[in-house]
Amino acid sequence: MSKEEASAFAPVNIALVKYWGKRNEELNLPVTSSLSISLGNYGATTSVKIIDAPVDQVLLDNQFVPNTDSFYTRVVKFLELIRNKFNLGNMRFQVKTHSNLPIAAGLASSASGFAALSLALNKLFAKNLSLEELSKLARRGSGSAARSVYQGFALWQAGQSPDGQDSFAYPINYTWPKLRIGLLIFNATKKATSSTQAMQATTKTCPFYKLWPQIVDEHLQIMLTAIKNHDFITLGSIAETNALYMHSMMQATIPPTIYANEHTLQCIKKIWELRSLGLNIYFTQDAGPNLKLIYLDEDSSLIKQHFAAYQLIEIDVFQGL
Amino acid sequence: MSKEEASAFAPVNIALVKYWGKRNEELNLPVTSSLSISLGNYGATTSVKIIDAPVDQVLLDNQFVPNTDSFYTRVVKFLELIRNKFNLGNMRFQVKTHSNLPIAAGLASSASGFAALSLALNKLFAKNLSLEELSKLARRGSGSAARSVYQGFALWQAGQSPDGQDSFAYPINYTWPKLRIGLLIFNATKKATSSTQAMQATTKTCPFYKLWPQIVDEHLQIMLTAIKNHDFITLGSIAETNALYMHSMMQATIPPTIYANEHTLQCIKKIWELRSLGLNIYFTQDAGPNLKLIYLDEDSSLIKQHFAAYQLIEIDVFQGL
Repeated sequence: MSKEEASAFAPVNIALVKYWGKRNEELNLPVTSSLSISLGNYGATTSVKIIDAPVDQVLLDNQFVPNTDSFYTRVVKFLELIRNKFNLGNMRFQVKTHSNLPIAAGLASSASGFAALSLALNKLFAKNLSLEELSKLARRGSGSAARSVYQGFALWQAGQSPDGQDSFAYPINYTWPKLRIGLLIFNATKKATSSTQAMQATTKTCPFYKLWPQIVDEHLQIMLTAIKNHDFITLGSIAETNALYMHSMMQATIPPTIYANEHTLQCIKKIWELRSLGLNIYFTQDAGPNLKLIYLDEDSSLIKQHFAAYQLIEIDVFQGL
Repeated sequence: MSKEEASAFAPVNIALVKYWGKRNEELNLPVTSSLSISLGNYGATTSVKIIDAPVDQVLLDNQFVPNTDSFYTRVVKFLELIRNKFNLGNMRFQVKTHSNLPIAAGLASSASGFAALSLALNKLFAKNLSLEELSKLARRGSGSAARSVYQGFALWQAGQSPDGQDSFAYPINYTWPKLRIGLLIFNATKKATSSTQAMQATTKTCPFYKLWPQIVDEHLQIMLTAIKNHDFITLGSIAETNALYMHSMMQATIPPTIYANEHTLQCIKKIWELRSLGLNIYFTQDAGPNLKLIYLDEDSSLIKQHFAAYQLIEIDVFQGL
């Protein structure tokens, strides 16, 4: 690879305590802190190359993204930020990004892509930025990208500064080798409502949203202790409750958003039934219909059997860490 | 019919602003007021007969209800109240109740049954109780029975008195001949969680519940004005929003309850899609998977076409009033 090009990988992250609501849309500053777990080798590889061309080029899975696409606009807006920050004048780039998760997972998401792009640009220009700085930079592309700079557990602290200088993620340095995340994929079509739209509507019109910051504070405290103590039931139940609260707020919003489809609903009920029968299985759900199962290594084969009718990708999140 | 027997009919009622949460479990006193519309000729016919037997007998659709059944216990508890109130000593009754709605509608509910039983007992003992008194009496059998004493719109005022003497429904005397309620029935099996259980859990553990009384107050004010002005869009949107808020609270409860099944979800999304295309259709949902569509006469045939794949019972609620 020449000096004109650099490439980096960043993992997808799954929030166990969700980020829902911005206090600053332009800077992607969140109302609350959030906590996630990264998915190891699953994520995006992004390369960036200096090109001699009048405009930036964006390729997703080796396909040129048309400049009419909102993803193109987002990437170019981020590159514009970089050109200003790094004093690059009119330099143009070709950005190639590829996720190793199925597109239908809804996880070929912008978070790992923008984190990887930030890491790649740091390499390309030999900036040697700290992970905190890289987290802040990635945040500008996609809020939750702030957390994808790390493996393992990460906490994105909301911060208080209007300029966002204290809004970055840092790693929670506890491993938990037995922890498993199961991506339950329902091959859904493109979602009707973007998470940005649903998030904005919630913060503006959901009467319950004013209680969300306090709820998140409580969930974060409990979750951090659970991680430290390897208290699986607490981790699972707080993650599930936090997700249910977030989705219930969206449903109590004008206009309401329900990301669940019939498979989501069936699997949620199945999870509850399995749990009532003694199985330690929990879920979380993001701005889409797919579920993320949370369980321990010892229940892996039983859970795979129970969900044999669905596409389940099991992730050993601390493998190799 | 001999003097030893009396019979009465009471309609099913559908809450447009929901009753969710009791301030007194024993007296069925609600946290908030609520507003409903009764379903005309759809409801329960209940007869009550004095019998020479050691225990009360309860028949549902001409089948004896075993005394181990919770419905039997509830009816006998109510009869006990009547024996005390009317000084009837050890008098025993045979209560026969029958709903003319399909059982799968989940509307062969206790509300119309207890309202009809209250009316029948009033006849049998020639008590000549006022509708207010009958509403209070019916409330003791099943909270929302307080509203089934009336046809048309009814408002059950929560009241403030600890003994419940000011907690009864009264009629909202506006008719709206064009209004239609469509019962969308998904032939669901018996629900896993009773409304009483879900209601108790919500009031105890849902963090959002503390905002519910104020929300209901606002919805009631808007709804009353909409009824007065025949403002259909406001009536429909407030009814739907109110139901969504109630179900979102249940989902944000420990343990959570989701009454929706896959058909509920598909139909909710269909309703939203139809509305985005300009059709004036709204829904409400109670403690079960079925939906109640709300629309006007002029859209009746179009709506029947759109939901041809489902069992839809259309009710002309003000017919004959």
